[in-house]
Amino acid sequence: MPQYDDSTITEAVLASMARCDDARFRQVMSALVQHLHAFVREVDLTEAEWAEAVEMLKATGQASTPQRNEFILLSDTLGVSMLVVQLAQRRKAQSMQGVTHATEATVEGPFYWQDAPDMPMGADLATEMPGERTLYQGRVTDIEGRPLAGAMLDVWSSDGEGRYDVQMAEPRMLGRGRLRTDADGRYRFWSVKPSAYPVPDDGTAGAMLRRLDRPNWRPAHLHLMVRADGHVPLTTHLFARDSDYLDRDAVFAVRDSLVVDYVRQPAGTAPDGRKLSEPYSLVSYDFRLPAARA
Amino acid sequence: MPQYDDSTITEAVLASMARCDDARFRQVMSALVQHLHAFVREVDLTEAEWAEAVEMLKATGQASTPQRNEFILLSDTLGVSMLVVQLAQRRKAQSMQGVTHATEATVEGPFYWQDAPDMPMGADLATEMPGERTLYQGRVTDIEGRPLAGAMLDVWSSDGEGRYDVQMAEPRMLGRGRLRTDADGRYRFWSVKPSAYPVPDDGTAGAMLRRLDRPNWRPAHLHLMVRADGHVPLTTHLFARDSDYLDRDAVFAVRDSLVVDYVRQPAGTAPDGRKLSEPYSLVSYDFRLPAARA
Repeated sequence: MPQYDDSTITEAVLASMARCDDARFRQVMSALVQHLHAFVREVDLTEAEWAEAVEMLKATGQASTPQRNEFILLSDTLGVSMLVVQLAQRRKAQSMQGVTHATEATVEGPFYWQDAPDMPMGADLATEMPGERTLYQGRVTDIEGRPLAGAMLDVWSSDGEGRYDVQMAEPRMLGRGRLRTDADGRYRFWSVKPSAYPVPDDGTAGAMLRRLDRPNWRPAHLHLMVRADGHVPLTTHLFARDSDYLDRDAVFAVRDSLVVDYVRQPAGTAPDGRKLSEPYSLVSYDFRLPAARA
Repeated sequence: MPQYDDSTITEAVLASMARCDDARFRQVMSALVQHLHAFVREVDLTEAEWAEAVEMLKATGQASTPQRNEFILLSDTLGVSMLVVQLAQRRKAQSMQGVTHATEATVEGPFYWQDAPDMPMGADLATEMPGERTLYQGRVTDIEGRPLAGAMLDVWSSDGEGRYDVQMAEPRMLGRGRLRTDADGRYRFWSVKPSAYPVPDDGTAGAMLRRLDRPNWRPAHLHLMVRADGHVPLTTHLFARDSDYLDRDAVFAVRDSLVVDYVRQPAGTAPDGRKLSEPYSLVSYDFRLPAARA
Protein backbone atom coordinates (compact mmCIF):
# COMPACT_ATOMS: atom_id res chain seq x y z
CA MET A 1 0.00 0.00 0.00
CA PRO A 2 1.24 3.56 -0.57
CA GLN A 3 1.66 5.46 2.65
CA TYR A 4 2.29 9.14 2.25
CA ASP A 5 3.56 11.54 4.83
CA ASP A 6 3.40 15.31 4.76
CA SER A 7 6.28 15.55 2.30
CA THR A 8 5.81 12.48 0.04
CA ILE A 9 2.17 13.28 -0.62
CA THR A 10 3.26 16.06 -2.96
CA GLU A 11 5.23 13.59 -5.06
CA ALA A 12 2.22 11.28 -5.13
CA VAL A 13 -0.05 14.01 -6.49
CA LEU A 14 2.52 14.93 -9.15
CA ALA A 15 2.92 11.27 -10.12
CA SER A 16 -0.85 10.95 -10.55
CA MET A 17 -0.65 13.46 -13.43
CA ALA A 18 1.96 11.56 -15.39
CA ARG A 19 -0.44 10.28 -18.03
CA CYS A 20 -1.71 13.76 -19.01
CA ASP A 21 -0.60 14.39 -22.59
CA ASP A 22 -1.31 18.14 -22.49
CA ALA A 23 2.22 19.13 -21.51
CA ARG A 24 1.39 22.74 -20.68
CA PHE A 25 -1.61 21.82 -18.51
CA ARG A 26 0.50 19.25 -16.69
CA GLN A 27 3.23 21.84 -16.14
CA VAL A 28 0.80 24.43 -14.78
CA MET A 29 -1.02 21.96 -12.52
CA SER A 30 2.23 20.45 -11.23
CA ALA A 31 3.55 23.88 -10.30
CA LEU A 32 0.20 24.76 -8.71
CA VAL A 33 0.28 21.62 -6.53
CA GLN A 34 3.87 22.24 -5.45
CA HIS A 35 3.25 25.87 -4.51
CA LEU A 36 -0.10 25.15 -2.85
CA HIS A 37 1.42 22.36 -0.73
CA ALA A 38 4.42 24.55 0.11
CA PHE A 39 2.03 27.28 1.29
CA VAL A 40 0.04 24.84 3.46
CA ARG A 41 3.25 23.47 4.96
CA GLU A 42 4.84 26.86 5.57
CA VAL A 43 1.91 28.20 7.59
CA ASP A 44 1.10 24.76 9.07
CA LEU A 45 -2.52 25.34 8.07
CA THR A 46 -4.99 24.00 10.62
CA GLU A 47 -8.08 22.00 9.85
CA ALA A 48 -10.28 24.88 11.04
CA GLU A 49 -8.46 27.33 8.75
CA TRP A 50 -8.78 24.92 5.84
CA ALA A 51 -12.52 24.62 6.48
CA GLU A 52 -12.83 28.42 6.57
CA ALA A 53 -10.93 28.69 3.28
CA VAL A 54 -13.11 26.22 1.38
CA GLU A 55 -16.26 27.95 2.68
CA MET A 56 -14.86 31.35 1.62
CA LEU A 57 -14.06 30.03 -1.89
CA LYS A 58 -17.57 28.59 -2.20
CA ALA A 59 -19.06 31.94 -1.16
CA THR A 60 -16.86 33.74 -3.72
CA GLY A 61 -18.34 31.64 -6.50
CA GLN A 62 -21.83 32.12 -5.21
CA ALA A 63 -21.39 35.93 -5.01
CA SER A 64 -20.65 35.89 -8.76
CA THR A 65 -23.23 36.57 -11.47
CA PRO A 66 -23.14 36.66 -15.29
CA GLN A 67 -22.00 40.32 -15.00
CA ARG A 68 -19.62 39.80 -12.10
CA ASN A 69 -16.85 37.34 -11.28
CA GLU A 70 -15.81 37.90 -7.68
CA PHE A 71 -12.66 35.80 -8.29
CA ILE A 72 -11.42 38.55 -10.66
CA LEU A 73 -11.71 41.01 -7.80
CA LEU A 74 -9.85 38.60 -5.49
CA SER A 75 -7.14 38.18 -8.11
CA ASP A 76 -6.95 41.96 -8.66
CA THR A 77 -6.71 42.80 -4.96
CA LEU A 78 -4.06 40.13 -4.36
CA GLY A 79 -1.92 41.62 -7.15
CA VAL A 80 -2.19 38.48 -9.28
CA SER A 81 -3.96 40.16 -12.21
CA MET A 82 -1.36 42.93 -12.49
CA LEU A 83 1.47 40.38 -12.21
CA VAL A 84 -0.02 38.49 -15.17
CA VAL A 85 -0.16 41.75 -17.16
CA GLN A 86 3.48 42.48 -16.31
CA LEU A 87 4.62 39.00 -17.32
CA ALA A 88 2.83 39.37 -20.67
CA GLN A 89 4.65 42.65 -21.21
CA ARG A 90 7.97 41.03 -20.36
CA ARG A 91 7.35 38.21 -22.86
CA LYS A 92 6.56 40.78 -25.56
CA ALA A 93 9.68 42.78 -24.71
CA GLN A 94 11.80 39.66 -25.12
CA SER A 95 10.26 38.74 -28.46
CA MET A 96 9.87 42.12 -30.18
CA GLN A 97 12.37 44.80 -30.91
CA GLY A 98 11.51 48.25 -29.67
CA VAL A 99 8.53 47.13 -27.68
CA THR A 100 9.75 49.19 -24.73
CA HIS A 101 8.46 52.20 -26.69
CA ALA A 102 4.94 50.74 -26.68
CA THR A 103 2.21 52.05 -24.39
CA GLU A 104 2.08 50.08 -21.15
CA ALA A 105 -0.82 47.80 -20.29
CA THR A 106 -2.71 47.46 -17.05
CA VAL A 107 -5.54 45.31 -15.69
CA GLU A 108 -8.89 44.98 -17.45
CA GLY A 109 -10.84 44.92 -14.20
CA PRO A 110 -14.32 43.47 -13.66
CA PHE A 111 -16.40 46.11 -15.50
CA TYR A 112 -15.71 45.50 -19.21
CA TRP A 113 -18.87 44.98 -21.28
CA GLN A 114 -18.53 43.61 -24.80
CA ASP A 115 -20.18 45.21 -27.82
CA ALA A 116 -20.30 48.82 -26.68
CA PRO A 117 -21.94 51.03 -29.37
CA ASP A 118 -19.91 52.37 -32.31
CA MET A 119 -19.52 56.11 -32.04
CA PRO A 120 -18.40 58.72 -34.61
CA MET A 121 -15.27 60.84 -34.20
CA GLY A 122 -15.84 63.50 -31.58
CA ALA A 123 -18.92 61.88 -30.02
CA ASP A 124 -19.79 62.25 -26.32
CA LEU A 125 -19.84 58.75 -24.77
CA ALA A 126 -21.35 59.89 -21.49
CA THR A 127 -24.13 62.38 -22.24
CA GLU A 128 -26.30 60.96 -19.45
CA MET A 129 -23.53 60.66 -16.87
CA PRO A 130 -22.77 63.17 -14.12
CA GLY A 131 -19.22 64.55 -14.12
CA GLU A 132 -17.08 67.28 -15.64
CA ARG A 133 -17.03 67.14 -19.45
CA THR A 134 -13.63 66.06 -20.75
CA LEU A 135 -12.29 66.05 -24.29
CA TYR A 136 -9.86 63.13 -24.87
CA GLN A 137 -7.69 63.42 -27.97
CA GLY A 138 -4.47 62.08 -29.49
CA ARG A 139 -3.18 59.52 -31.95
CA VAL A 140 -2.70 55.79 -32.28
CA THR A 141 0.65 54.98 -33.89
CA ASP A 142 3.12 52.16 -34.22
CA ILE A 143 6.23 52.24 -32.05
CA GLU A 144 8.02 54.42 -34.58
CA GLY A 145 5.26 57.02 -34.49
CA ARG A 146 3.63 56.12 -37.83
CA PRO A 147 -0.14 56.67 -37.67
CA LEU A 148 -2.46 53.66 -37.53
CA ALA A 149 -5.61 54.54 -39.47
CA GLY A 150 -8.84 52.73 -38.56
CA ALA A 151 -7.54 51.59 -35.18
CA MET A 152 -10.33 50.89 -32.69
CA LEU A 153 -10.57 52.38 -29.20
CA ASP A 154 -13.03 50.60 -26.89
CA VAL A 155 -13.56 52.99 -23.96
CA TRP A 156 -15.33 52.66 -20.60
CA SER A 157 -15.24 54.44 -17.27
CA SER A 158 -17.09 55.32 -14.13
CA ASP A 159 -19.02 58.56 -13.94
CA GLY A 160 -17.80 61.65 -12.05
CA GLU A 161 -19.12 60.09 -8.84
CA GLY A 162 -17.18 56.83 -9.21
CA ARG A 163 -20.06 54.64 -10.33
CA TYR A 164 -20.21 52.31 -13.37
CA ASP A 165 -23.32 51.66 -15.43
CA VAL A 166 -23.22 47.96 -14.44
CA GLN A 167 -23.54 48.95 -10.79
CA MET A 168 -26.89 50.68 -11.30
CA ALA A 169 -30.15 49.05 -10.24
CA GLU A 170 -31.10 48.52 -13.90
CA PRO A 171 -27.82 48.37 -15.82
CA ARG A 172 -27.76 49.75 -19.39
CA MET A 173 -24.67 50.89 -21.28
CA LEU A 174 -23.52 54.37 -20.26
CA GLY A 175 -20.08 55.91 -20.61
CA ARG A 176 -18.99 53.25 -23.12
CA GLY A 177 -18.26 53.40 -26.83
CA ARG A 178 -16.05 52.21 -29.66
CA LEU A 179 -14.33 54.71 -31.96
CA ARG A 180 -12.05 54.51 -35.00
CA THR A 181 -8.99 56.62 -35.74
CA ASP A 182 -8.93 58.73 -38.90
CA ALA A 183 -6.37 58.56 -41.74
CA ASP A 184 -3.79 60.34 -39.57
CA GLY A 185 -4.36 57.92 -36.67
CA ARG A 186 -6.19 60.63 -34.73
CA TYR A 187 -8.99 60.03 -32.24
CA ARG A 188 -11.21 62.46 -30.36
CA PHE A 189 -14.14 61.87 -28.01
CA TRP A 190 -15.91 63.44 -25.07
CA SER A 191 -16.67 61.75 -21.79
CA VAL A 192 -16.57 62.72 -18.13
CA LYS A 193 -13.64 63.11 -15.78
CA PRO A 194 -13.90 59.87 -13.76
CA SER A 195 -13.65 59.75 -10.00
CA ALA A 196 -11.80 57.57 -7.50
CA TYR A 197 -14.02 54.81 -6.09
CA PRO A 198 -13.95 51.86 -3.70
CA VAL A 199 -13.94 48.38 -5.26
CA PRO A 200 -17.17 46.47 -4.52
CA ASP A 201 -17.23 45.69 -0.80
CA ASP A 202 -20.30 43.43 -0.63
CA GLY A 203 -18.49 40.17 -1.51
CA THR A 204 -15.67 38.03 -0.17
CA ALA A 205 -12.92 40.27 -1.62
CA GLY A 206 -14.38 43.22 0.28
CA ALA A 207 -14.54 41.14 3.46
CA MET A 208 -10.89 40.13 2.98
CA LEU A 209 -9.79 43.77 2.54
CA ARG A 210 -11.65 44.81 5.69
CA ARG A 211 -10.09 41.99 7.70
CA LEU A 212 -6.64 42.99 6.39
CA ASP A 213 -7.41 46.65 7.24
CA ARG A 214 -6.48 47.50 3.65
CA PRO A 215 -7.74 50.57 1.77
CA ASN A 216 -10.14 49.47 -0.96
CA TRP A 217 -10.04 52.54 -3.26
CA ARG A 218 -8.90 52.90 -6.84
CA PRO A 219 -7.61 56.20 -8.21
CA ALA A 220 -9.68 57.92 -10.95
CA HIS A 221 -9.12 56.31 -14.35
CA LEU A 222 -10.52 55.79 -17.84
CA HIS A 223 -10.37 52.25 -19.29
CA LEU A 224 -9.38 51.62 -22.91
CA MET A 225 -8.72 48.73 -25.21
CA VAL A 226 -6.84 49.74 -28.38
CA ARG A 227 -6.80 47.40 -31.39
CA ALA A 228 -5.21 47.82 -34.84
CA ASP A 229 -4.80 45.23 -37.59
CA GLY A 230 -1.35 43.65 -37.52
CA HIS A 231 -0.54 45.09 -34.11
CA VAL A 232 -0.50 43.75 -30.56
CA PRO A 233 -3.76 44.65 -28.79
CA LEU A 234 -3.54 46.84 -25.70
CA THR A 235 -5.72 46.91 -22.57
CA THR A 236 -4.90 49.86 -20.35
CA HIS A 237 -6.07 52.84 -18.25
CA LEU A 238 -5.40 56.56 -18.21
CA PHE A 239 -5.09 57.75 -14.59
CA ALA A 240 -5.88 61.31 -13.46
CA ARG A 241 -2.77 62.93 -12.00
CA ASP A 242 -4.77 64.90 -9.43
CA SER A 243 -6.59 61.83 -8.08
CA ASP A 244 -6.16 60.44 -4.59
CA TYR A 245 -5.00 56.83 -4.20
CA LEU A 246 -2.44 56.83 -7.03
CA ASP A 247 0.04 55.66 -4.38
CA ARG A 248 -2.24 52.95 -2.93
CA ASP A 249 -4.42 51.59 -5.71
CA ALA A 250 -6.33 48.60 -4.26
CA VAL A 251 -5.36 46.56 -7.34
CA PHE A 252 -1.73 47.77 -7.81
CA ALA A 253 -2.37 48.81 -11.42
CA VAL A 254 -0.92 52.36 -11.59
CA ARG A 255 2.00 52.92 -13.97
CA ASP A 256 3.77 56.29 -14.27
CA SER A 257 3.50 56.32 -18.04
CA LEU A 258 -0.31 56.13 -17.82
CA VAL A 259 -0.83 59.10 -15.49
CA VAL A 260 -2.18 62.09 -17.42
CA ASP A 261 -3.11 65.72 -16.76
CA TYR A 262 -6.76 66.69 -16.92
CA VAL A 263 -6.07 70.28 -18.05
CA ARG A 264 -8.88 72.54 -16.84
CA GLN A 265 -10.30 74.86 -19.52
CA PRO A 266 -12.66 77.81 -19.03
CA ALA A 267 -16.22 77.72 -20.37
CA GLY A 268 -16.33 78.64 -24.05
CA THR A 269 -15.60 77.02 -27.39
CA ALA A 270 -13.58 73.78 -27.27
CA PRO A 271 -10.92 72.89 -29.89
CA ASP A 272 -13.50 70.82 -31.80
CA GLY A 273 -16.01 73.68 -31.92
CA ARG A 274 -18.28 72.46 -29.12
CA LYS A 275 -19.60 75.32 -27.00
CA LEU A 276 -19.52 74.72 -23.23
CA SER A 277 -21.25 76.84 -20.60
CA GLU A 278 -19.13 75.30 -17.82
CA PRO A 279 -15.40 74.73 -17.46
CA TYR A 280 -14.21 71.44 -18.93
CA SER A 281 -11.00 69.35 -19.07
CA LEU A 282 -8.69 68.38 -21.88
CA VAL A 283 -6.64 65.14 -21.94
CA SER A 284 -4.06 64.48 -24.66
CA TYR A 285 -2.47 61.04 -25.01
CA ASP A 286 -0.89 59.04 -27.85
CA PHE A 287 -1.06 55.23 -27.87
CA ARG A 288 1.81 53.27 -29.44
CA LEU A 289 1.27 49.64 -30.46
CA PRO A 290 4.03 47.22 -31.48
CA ALA A 291 3.58 45.23 -34.68
CA ALA A 292 2.35 41.68 -34.13
CA ARG A 293 4.71 38.92 -35.21
CA ALA A 294 3.84 37.36 -38.51
CA MET B 1 4.02 57.35 -8.00
CA PRO B 2 4.68 53.71 -7.17
CA GLN B 3 5.68 51.72 -10.21
CA TYR B 4 5.80 47.99 -9.69
CA ASP B 5 7.46 45.45 -11.88
CA ASP B 6 6.89 41.71 -11.90
CA SER B 7 9.01 41.23 -8.80
CA THR B 8 8.33 44.36 -6.71
CA ILE B 9 4.57 43.96 -6.97
CA THR B 10 4.76 41.11 -4.46
CA GLU B 11 6.37 43.40 -1.90
CA ALA B 12 3.70 46.00 -2.58
CA VAL B 13 0.89 43.54 -1.85
CA LEU B 14 2.61 42.41 1.35
CA ALA B 15 3.13 46.02 2.44
CA SER B 16 -0.57 46.73 1.92
CA MET B 17 -1.36 44.25 4.71
CA ALA B 18 0.87 45.91 7.29
CA ARG B 19 -1.98 47.45 9.27
CA CYS B 20 -3.78 44.14 9.85
CA ASP B 21 -3.68 43.45 13.58
CA ASP B 22 -4.72 39.78 13.29
CA ALA B 23 -1.17 38.41 13.22
CA ARG B 24 -2.14 34.89 12.17
CA PHE B 25 -4.38 36.08 9.33
CA ARG B 26 -1.64 38.43 8.12
CA GLN B 27 0.86 35.55 8.23
CA VAL B 28 -1.42 33.19 6.27
CA MET B 29 -2.36 35.81 3.67
CA SER B 30 1.26 36.97 3.25
CA ALA B 31 2.41 33.41 2.62
CA LEU B 32 -0.50 32.86 0.23
CA VAL B 33 0.42 35.94 -1.80
CA GLN B 34 4.08 34.93 -1.97
CA HIS B 35 3.35 31.37 -3.08
CA LEU B 36 0.61 32.42 -5.50
CA HIS B 37 2.88 35.00 -7.14
CA ALA B 38 5.76 32.51 -7.24
CA PHE B 39 3.48 30.02 -9.02
CA VAL B 40 2.34 32.62 -11.58
CA ARG B 41 5.95 33.64 -12.23
CA GLU B 42 7.29 30.10 -12.45
CA VAL B 43 4.83 29.03 -15.15
CA ASP B 44 4.77 32.52 -16.76
CA LEU B 45 0.97 32.33 -16.67
CA THR B 46 -0.63 33.87 -19.76
CA GLU B 47 -3.60 36.20 -19.76
CA ALA B 48 -5.72 33.54 -21.50
CA GLU B 49 -4.78 30.94 -18.86
CA TRP B 50 -5.58 33.43 -16.09
CA ALA B 51 -8.99 34.09 -17.64
CA GLU B 52 -9.67 30.35 -17.85
CA ALA B 53 -8.67 29.92 -14.20
CA VAL B 54 -10.98 32.64 -12.87
CA GLU B 55 -13.88 31.21 -14.92
CA MET B 56 -13.14 27.70 -13.60
CA LEU B 57 -13.09 28.98 -10.00
CA LYS B 58 -16.41 30.78 -10.54
CA ALA B 59 -17.92 27.57 -11.96
CA THR B 60 -16.61 25.61 -8.96
CA GLY B 61 -18.51 27.89 -6.60
CA GLN B 62 -21.62 27.74 -8.72
CA ALA B 63 -21.52 23.90 -8.85
CA SER B 64 -21.73 23.92 -5.05
CA THR B 65 -24.95 23.54 -3.07
CA PRO B 66 -25.82 23.49 0.65
CA GLN B 67 -25.04 19.70 0.60
CA ARG B 68 -21.96 19.96 -1.60
CA ASN B 69 -18.85 22.11 -1.68
CA GLU B 70 -17.00 21.40 -4.91
CA PHE B 71 -13.92 23.19 -3.51
CA ILE B 72 -13.59 20.36 -0.94
CA LEU B 73 -13.41 17.89 -3.82
CA LEU B 74 -10.80 20.07 -5.57
CA SER B 75 -8.80 20.24 -2.34
CA ASP B 76 -9.14 16.48 -1.81
CA THR B 77 -8.07 15.56 -5.36
CA LEU B 78 -5.10 17.96 -5.23
CA GLY B 79 -3.88 16.29 -2.03
CA VAL B 80 -4.36 19.45 0.03
CA SER B 81 -6.96 17.99 2.40
CA MET B 82 -4.81 14.97 3.26
CA LEU B 83 -1.77 17.20 3.73
CA VAL B 84 -3.74 19.28 6.25
CA VAL B 85 -4.70 16.05 8.11
CA GLN B 86 -1.05 14.96 8.16
CA LEU B 87 0.15 18.32 9.48
CA ALA B 88 -2.44 18.17 12.28
CA GLN B 89 -1.16 14.70 13.20
CA ARG B 90 2.42 15.98 13.22
CA ARG B 91 1.48 18.87 15.53
CA LYS B 92 -0.21 16.42 17.91
CA ALA B 93 2.80 14.10 17.83
CA GLN B 94 5.04 16.99 18.82
CA SER B 95 2.85 18.09 21.68
CA MET B 96 1.66 14.77 23.15
CA GLN B 97 3.61 11.85 24.46
CA GLY B 98 2.72 8.51 22.99
CA VAL B 99 0.48 9.90 20.30
CA THR B 100 2.20 7.68 17.75
CA HIS B 101 0.16 4.87 19.28
CA ALA B 102 -3.07 6.65 18.42
CA THR B 103 -5.29 5.61 15.51
CA GLU B 104 -4.39 7.57 12.37
CA ALA B 105 -6.72 10.14 10.86
CA THR B 106 -7.70 10.64 7.25
CA VAL B 107 -9.88 13.07 5.28
CA GLU B 108 -13.49 13.78 6.15
CA GLY B 109 -14.57 14.00 2.53
CA PRO B 110 -17.63 15.78 1.16
CA PHE B 111 -20.37 13.39 2.38
CA TYR B 112 -20.56 13.94 6.15
CA TRP B 113 -24.06 14.82 7.37
CA GLN B 114 -24.49 16.17 10.88
CA ASP B 115 -26.98 14.77 13.37
CA ALA B 116 -27.20 11.18 12.19
CA PRO B 117 -29.66 9.18 14.33
CA ASP B 118 -28.59 7.67 17.66
CA MET B 119 -28.52 3.87 17.43
CA PRO B 120 -28.36 1.19 20.15
CA MET B 121 -25.45 -1.23 20.50
CA GLY B 122 -25.60 -3.84 17.75
CA ALA B 123 -28.02 -1.92 15.49
CA ASP B 124 -27.97 -2.23 11.70
CA LEU B 125 -27.28 1.24 10.23
CA ALA B 126 -28.05 0.22 6.68
CA THR B 127 -31.16 -1.92 6.67
CA GLU B 128 -32.40 -0.30 3.45
CA MET B 129 -29.07 -0.32 1.64
CA PRO B 130 -27.90 -2.93 -0.88
CA GLY B 131 -24.64 -4.68 -0.04
CA GLU B 132 -23.23 -7.59 1.93
CA ARG B 133 -24.12 -7.43 5.64
CA THR B 134 -21.07 -6.70 7.76
CA LEU B 135 -20.64 -6.78 11.52
CA TYR B 136 -18.16 -4.15 12.77
CA GLN B 137 -16.87 -4.64 16.30
CA GLY B 138 -14.03 -3.63 18.60
CA ARG B 139 -13.13 -1.20 21.33
CA VAL B 140 -12.36 2.46 21.84
CA THR B 141 -9.45 2.95 24.25
CA ASP B 142 -6.88 5.51 25.23
CA ILE B 143 -3.34 5.07 23.92
CA GLU B 144 -2.48 2.74 26.76
CA GLY B 145 -5.39 0.45 25.93
CA ARG B 146 -7.66 1.52 28.77
CA PRO B 147 -11.31 1.36 27.69
CA LEU B 148 -13.22 4.58 27.02
CA ALA B 149 -16.82 4.05 28.10
CA GLY B 150 -19.51 6.18 26.46
CA ALA B 151 -17.30 7.16 23.52
CA MET B 152 -19.31 8.13 20.43
CA LEU B 153 -18.82 6.64 16.98
CA ASP B 154 -20.43 8.65 14.16
CA VAL B 155 -20.46 6.31 11.15
CA TRP B 156 -21.29 6.79 7.46
CA SER B 157 -20.55 4.98 4.22
CA SER B 158 -21.63 4.29 0.69
CA ASP B 159 -23.79 1.26 -0.02
CA GLY B 160 -22.46 -1.93 -1.61
CA GLU B 161 -22.74 -0.29 -5.03
CA GLY B 162 -20.63 2.77 -4.11
CA ARG B 163 -23.47 5.24 -3.70
CA TYR B 164 -24.12 7.61 -0.77
CA ASP B 165 -27.57 8.60 0.46
CA VAL B 166 -26.85 12.26 -0.39
CA GLN B 167 -26.35 11.27 -4.03
CA MET B 168 -29.86 9.92 -4.42
CA ALA B 169 -32.59 11.87 -6.22
CA GLU B 170 -34.35 12.52 -2.91
CA PRO B 171 -31.66 12.33 -0.21
CA ARG B 172 -32.63 11.00 3.21
CA MET B 173 -30.25 9.55 5.81
CA LEU B 174 -29.25 5.97 5.06
CA GLY B 175 -26.19 4.09 6.22
CA ARG B 176 -25.49 6.61 8.98
CA GLY B 177 -25.73 6.44 12.72
CA ARG B 178 -24.20 7.39 16.06
CA LEU B 179 -23.36 4.76 18.67
CA ARG B 180 -21.91 4.72 22.17
CA THR B 181 -19.38 2.31 23.61
CA ASP B 182 -20.29 0.24 26.66
CA ALA B 183 -18.54 0.16 30.04
CA ASP B 184 -15.70 -1.90 28.55
CA GLY B 185 -15.26 0.52 25.64
CA ARG B 186 -16.83 -1.99 23.27
CA TYR B 187 -18.84 -1.11 20.17
CA ARG B 188 -20.75 -3.30 17.74
CA PHE B 189 -22.93 -2.42 14.76
CA TRP B 190 -24.07 -3.82 11.44
CA SER B 191 -23.80 -2.08 8.12
CA VAL B 192 -22.88 -3.09 4.56
CA LYS B 193 -19.51 -3.80 3.01
CA PRO B 194 -18.93 -0.58 1.07
CA SER B 195 -17.74 -0.54 -2.52
CA ALA B 196 -15.12 1.44 -4.42
CA TYR B 197 -16.63 4.39 -6.29
CA PRO B 198 -15.64 7.29 -8.53
CA VAL B 199 -15.66 10.76 -6.96
CA PRO B 200 -18.42 12.98 -8.46
CA ASP B 201 -17.47 13.73 -12.05
CA ASP B 202 -20.15 16.28 -12.95
CA GLY B 203 -18.31 19.35 -11.60
CA THR B 204 -15.04 21.18 -12.16
CA ALA B 205 -12.98 18.70 -10.11
CA GLY B 206 -14.20 15.88 -12.36
CA ALA B 207 -13.35 17.93 -15.44
CA MET B 208 -9.86 18.54 -14.06
CA LEU B 209 -9.28 14.84 -13.39
CA ARG B 210 -10.38 13.95 -16.95
CA ARG B 211 -8.10 16.58 -18.45
CA LEU B 212 -5.21 15.24 -16.34
CA ASP B 213 -6.09 11.68 -17.41
CA ARG B 214 -6.20 10.77 -13.71
CA PRO B 215 -8.18 7.87 -12.24
CA ASN B 216 -11.07 9.25 -10.18
CA TRP B 217 -11.85 6.22 -8.01
CA ARG B 218 -11.70 5.78 -4.27
CA PRO B 219 -11.12 2.36 -2.67
CA ALA B 220 -13.98 0.90 -0.58
CA HIS B 221 -14.12 2.48 2.88
CA LEU B 222 -16.28 3.17 5.92
CA HIS B 223 -16.14 6.68 7.45
CA LEU B 224 -16.01 7.23 11.19
CA MET B 225 -15.66 10.06 13.64
CA VAL B 226 -14.76 8.89 17.14
CA ARG B 227 -15.23 11.21 20.13
CA ALA B 228 -14.61 10.69 23.84
CA ASP B 229 -14.63 13.22 26.65
CA GLY B 230 -11.13 14.44 27.48
CA HIS B 231 -9.63 12.90 24.37
CA VAL B 232 -8.58 14.19 20.97
CA PRO B 233 -11.37 13.64 18.41
CA LEU B 234 -10.60 11.42 15.45
CA THR B 235 -11.92 11.52 11.87
CA THR B 236 -10.88 8.50 9.86
CA HIS B 237 -11.80 5.63 7.50
CA LEU B 238 -11.54 1.87 7.55
CA PHE B 239 -10.44 0.62 4.11
CA ALA B 240 -11.29 -2.85 2.75
CA ARG B 241 -8.09 -4.79 2.08
CA ASP B 242 -9.58 -6.57 -0.94
CA SER B 243 -10.68 -3.35 -2.64
CA ASP B 244 -9.24 -2.04 -5.89
CA TYR B 245 -7.67 1.43 -5.91
CA LEU B 246 -5.91 1.19 -2.53
CA ASP B 247 -2.75 2.07 -4.45
CA ARG B 248 -4.30 4.97 -6.37
CA ASP B 249 -6.96 6.60 -4.22
CA ALA B 250 -8.12 9.76 -6.03
CA VAL B 251 -7.74 11.72 -2.78
CA PHE B 252 -4.50 10.15 -1.43
CA ALA B 253 -6.14 9.21 1.88
CA VAL B 254 -5.11 5.54 2.34
CA ARG B 255 -2.96 4.67 5.35
CA ASP B 256 -1.67 1.15 6.05
CA SER B 257 -2.89 1.18 9.62
CA LEU B 258 -6.48 1.76 8.45
CA VAL B 259 -6.69 -1.16 6.01
CA VAL B 260 -8.79 -3.98 7.48
CA ASP B 261 -9.90 -7.48 6.54
CA TYR B 262 -13.53 -8.09 5.78
CA VAL B 263 -13.52 -11.71 6.96
CA ARG B 264 -16.16 -13.68 5.07
CA GLN B 265 -18.44 -15.81 7.25
CA PRO B 266 -20.88 -18.50 6.13
CA ALA B 267 -24.62 -17.99 6.55
CA GLY B 268 -25.73 -18.88 10.05
CA THR B 269 -25.71 -17.32 13.51
CA ALA B 270 -23.39 -14.34 13.95
CA PRO B 271 -21.41 -13.70 17.17
CA ASP B 272 -24.15 -11.35 18.42
CA GLY B 273 -26.87 -13.96 17.84
CA ARG B 274 -28.25 -12.48 14.60
CA LYS B 275 -29.30 -15.22 12.14
CA LEU B 276 -28.21 -14.67 8.52
CA SER B 277 -29.44 -16.62 5.50
CA GLU B 278 -26.55 -15.30 3.38
CA PRO B 279 -22.81 -15.15 3.98
CA TYR B 280 -21.71 -11.98 5.76
CA SER B 281 -18.44 -10.26 6.74
CA LEU B 282 -16.81 -9.52 10.05
CA VAL B 283 -14.52 -6.51 10.70
CA SER B 284 -12.65 -6.10 13.98
CA TYR B 285 -10.87 -2.84 14.78
CA ASP B 286 -9.85 -0.98 17.93
CA PHE B 287 -9.63 2.82 18.01
CA ARG B 288 -7.07 4.48 20.27
CA LEU B 289 -7.47 8.15 21.20
CA PRO B 290 -4.82 10.27 22.93
CA ALA B 291 -5.84 12.35 25.93
CA ALA B 292 -6.52 16.01 25.15
CA ARG B 293 -4.24 18.49 26.85
CA ALA B 294 -5.74 20.18 29.88
